[in-house]
Amino acid sequence: MKLNERGLLVIISGPSGVGKGTVRKALFEMEGHDLVYSISMTTRPQREGEVDGVDYFFVTVEEFEKRINEGKFLEYAKFVGHYYGTPKDKIDEQLAKGKEVVLEIEVQGANQVREKAKDGVFIFIAPPSRNALYRRLLRRGTDSKTSIKNRMDKANREFPLAHKYDYIVVNDEVRNAADRIMAIIRAEHAKTRRSIYKYKEMLEVE
Amino acid sequence: MKLNERGLLVIISGPSGVGKGTVRKALFEMEGHDLVYSISMTTRPQREGEVDGVDYFFVTVEEFEKRINEGKFLEYAKFVGHYYGTPKDKIDEQLAKGKEVVLEIEVQGANQVREKAKDGVFIFIAPPSRNALYRRLLRRGTDSKTSIKNRMDKANREFPLAHKYDYIVVNDEVRNAADRIMAIIRAEHAKTRRSIYKYKEMLEVE
Repeated sequence: MKLNERGLLVIISGPSGVGKGTVRKALFEMEGHDLVYSISMTTRPQREGEVDGVDYFFVTVEEFEKRINEGKFLEYAKFVGHYYGTPKDKIDEQLAKGKEVVLEIEVQGANQVREKAKDGVFIFIAPPSRNALYRRLLRRGTDSKTSIKNRMDKANREFPLAHKYDYIVVNDEVRNAADRIMAIIRAEHAKTRRSIYKYKEMLEVE
Repeated sequence: MKLNERGLLVIISGPSGVGKGTVRKALFEMEGHDLVYSISMTTRPQREGEVDGVDYFFVTVEEFEKRINEGKFLEYAKFVGHYYGTPKDKIDEQLAKGKEVVLEIEVQGANQVREKAKDGVFIFIAPPSRNALYRRLLRRGTDSKTSIKNRMDKANREFPLAHKYDYIVVNDEVRNAADRIMAIIRAEHAKTRRSIYKYKEMLEVE
C-alpha cells in the first residue's frame, strides 16, 4: 500500500555519454511501474510522422514566449533558432494522476528544474570512472576528436555538481542502475513528508 | 556498484501488534542482502542453550552500569530487575564491515536511539487502520481484554509519533512491507550524503 498517491517527478541527469538514455530505457522496460516521459514543448516545425502531444507539444514562438513569461516552464533553452522546454502544467497533470514523470536532462537543465521543482527526486548518473566515460564517448563514434575533448571538459566541470543531487547512481551496469532508480522511487513514496498526510487520514491522527 | 560501503543502521519500529517481527523476518528471508540483527546486551542470567554473543551479550550489572555511564548504549531499559540494552560499539563494528544492522524496537526505544544515531534509517511500521491493529491484537489471543485495551491506548499515543521517522511503511501485506524496506535500504545507500565521499575518490573530484 502506497501512502503517497501523487506521482513523483524523477530527474535523471548527468554528463553526456554517461548513459542516461540507456538507463532510462531499461527503467521503462521494467515491470509494474507507472512511469511516463515528460513531453517537451517546442517551436521547431513538426516533422512528418511526429504526433503533437506524443513526440512534442508543438507551439508557436508567441505561445512559447508567453509561457516563459508566465513561468510555465521547469526549464527551457534555445537550440539552433528553436525553443525547447519542459512544460510545468503538463507534468503537474500527470503527477496528479499518480504517474511518475521521468525527466532525462542535461546537468544545466537540471539546475534550472531544481529552482522550480523543490519536490523533485534528483538523481545524478555517474560513470564508474573518468576513463570509462571517455571510452564510452569514443565508442559512440559519432563525435570528432575535438567534440569528444569538449564533452570530456564539460563532464569534468559537471562532476563536482553531483553534490546538489539527492542521489548518485553509478552506471557500471545498466540493469543495476535501473534497479537502483526503481528502489529510489519506491523508497521516496514511503518518505514521511510525502506520506504523512494520507497516514493521518488513514489512522485519523490529529 | 554501491558508493556507500558502510552498512546502514535500520530501525524498524511501530506500535505493538503492528507486525514488526513478521516484517523483519520476511526481510531477512529475502535474497541478496547483507542484513544482521543487532544483538542485545543483558544482565539477566544466561539460560540453557543460549549462546553468549549470539542470543545476547551476557554481562554483569557492574559492567552494564559502567557502559551506561560511558554512553555505550543506543538505548537501554530495565525489565523485571534486569537490564537490556543495545550496545553501540558492537553495532559500529558490524556497520564498518558493511553489514546493515537491523534494530526491531518499540517506539520509546526508537526515541532514545534517535538521539544517538543521527545517521540511522528510521522506519515506522503502520497498520492499515486502527481496526486492523485491534483485530491483530485480538487474534494473537495471548493477551487479556485489559491488556489489549492498554496496548490500543499505547498505540493511539504512538501513532502521532510517526512524523519523527524517515519513512512510513504500511504493513497491509507482509511481503509488500518487506519489499519496500529493502527498496529503502537500496535507495539510502545511493543518497548523496552517504555516497559523495566515495564518488569524489572514484572520479578524483576536488
